[in-house]
Amino acid sequence: MRNICMTVSYDGTAYNGFQTQPSLNTIQDVLEQAVHSLTGEKVKLTSSGRTDAGVHARGQVINFYTESKIPIERWCMALNTRLPDDIVVSGAREVDLSFHATRSAVQKTYRYSIRCGRHPDLFKRHMEFYHPTALNTDAMAEGLKWLIGTHDFTSFCSVRSTKLSHVRTLFDARLECEPVDPQLQSFTIHIYLTGNGFLYNMVRIVAGTLIQVGEGKRSSESIRDILEARNRAKAGPTAVPHGLMLWEVLYNLDTIIT
Amino acid sequence: MRNICMTVSYDGTAYNGFQTQPSLNTIQDVLEQAVHSLTGEKVKLTSSGRTDAGVHARGQVINFYTESKIPIERWCMALNTRLPDDIVVSGAREVDLSFHATRSAVQKTYRYSIRCGRHPDLFKRHMEFYHPTALNTDAMAEGLKWLIGTHDFTSFCSVRSTKLSHVRTLFDARLECEPVDPQLQSFTIHIYLTGNGFLYNMVRIVAGTLIQVGEGKRSSESIRDILEARNRAKAGPTAVPHGLMLWEVLYNLDTIIT
Repeated sequence: MRNICMTVSYDGTAYNGFQTQPSLNTIQDVLEQAVHSLTGEKVKLTSSGRTDAGVHARGQVINFYTESKIPIERWCMALNTRLPDDIVVSGAREVDLSFHATRSAVQKTYRYSIRCGRHPDLFKRHMEFYHPTALNTDAMAEGLKWLIGTHDFTSFCSVRSTKLSHVRTLFDARLECEPVDPQLQSFTIHIYLTGNGFLYNMVRIVAGTLIQVGEGKRSSESIRDILEARNRAKAGPTAVPHGLMLWEVLYNLDTIIT
Repeated sequence: MRNICMTVSYDGTAYNGFQTQPSLNTIQDVLEQAVHSLTGEKVKLTSSGRTDAGVHARGQVINFYTESKIPIERWCMALNTRLPDDIVVSGAREVDLSFHATRSAVQKTYRYSIRCGRHPDLFKRHMEFYHPTALNTDAMAEGLKWLIGTHDFTSFCSVRSTKLSHVRTLFDARLECEPVDPQLQSFTIHIYLTGNGFLYNMVRIVAGTLIQVGEGKRSSESIRDILEARNRAKAGPTAVPHGLMLWEVLYNLDTIIT
């Protein structure tokens, strides 16, 4: 038996999220079908974490067990030829049998992208939340700083969460601006959140709240007050899924090398 | 009567090109329907030039005549609310009645994009030609220089061209590299061609030939020899349409201001 770990990118636009659901088209199903087509085995993939419908991934990590003898350097291309063009396997490696894509993950980064300007960038319309006016990015960056550290993130978590603890640690929370077309006074704001774990809808609720900070409807300091309230109703709306991308997942090498 | 000139961007993926064709879905049709929905008029748009099926535009320019009294500053938003999200009107102005989007155009720029690397960038898969190995960009840039100036571009023109003269002037022909992910040794090459006019498939044949230069199958100097031959068979293949974007069209202000 071998434990195969792969890095996968996908455009989530056409899918009902990552995780298998009855009679819905999911990324997990399509990946498992591709492995089945290659090896003849019915595998069950484990991912670093599910992503919702419409959410994208630059660097999702998955693993699965196989009896296949196919050399590791052949897996990427063999699967990519069996996958639709909105899912790409960009790396494959054999890992220790104890490796588990969810439980072994040490750090995850998500990116949320907001396009401000007179018009959306139509070539990125499936990947950016569109906001027709400028946002105060200085205030948003100030607000983000309150999130760094170990906090109870109940206010930034869907009430549908089933987790026992809402305490998580954010190692970094920062904002980057990408000028797109200075003539049109349009730009894209990328919010990067890096932490040891994320709660259900956490990044989208942070983004929805920060947009209100950028609009001047809330102060930067209100982020601190929202955290302290531990009450989802105190935060802003859950921003649309298509602005969100699972950017990167990190592991300790000791758990990977076989 | 008023002459309205608009700048339009579109993702050409879902369309059978710009120009109206019987029983096919074209960008011109969709734009004319949006104007009809707004003004009740059946207008006929003129564009700076047609684009083929799958080709995109960042800055296509069109004009049409209308009896509508709608203030010019209202046109953009009024049309965008009537257009699908893969077509965006980014500017509108009233121009002299003599203005003609094709005949008044002084200079056009096209961009052709080639992604090199182990994997395509799946978020740009509809906008980049994918080449699995690296290309010699120095040789390609050298080859491009031979195209600058006034030449008979018969070798770089589809044999289906109906133009009497194949002499055109390229003011600039240059190459830009955009590093995407240094870890994956992948990058995107953008070829920009700027000229006073372009022949049928000209940019795509230039791109297809330059890719062969980048692969080492042809020398940079072969571009000069191909030009001199005035024979389409001497050039490389016509590169796929989806890597091509109409980047910018320039006009003399004297013909625009009403």
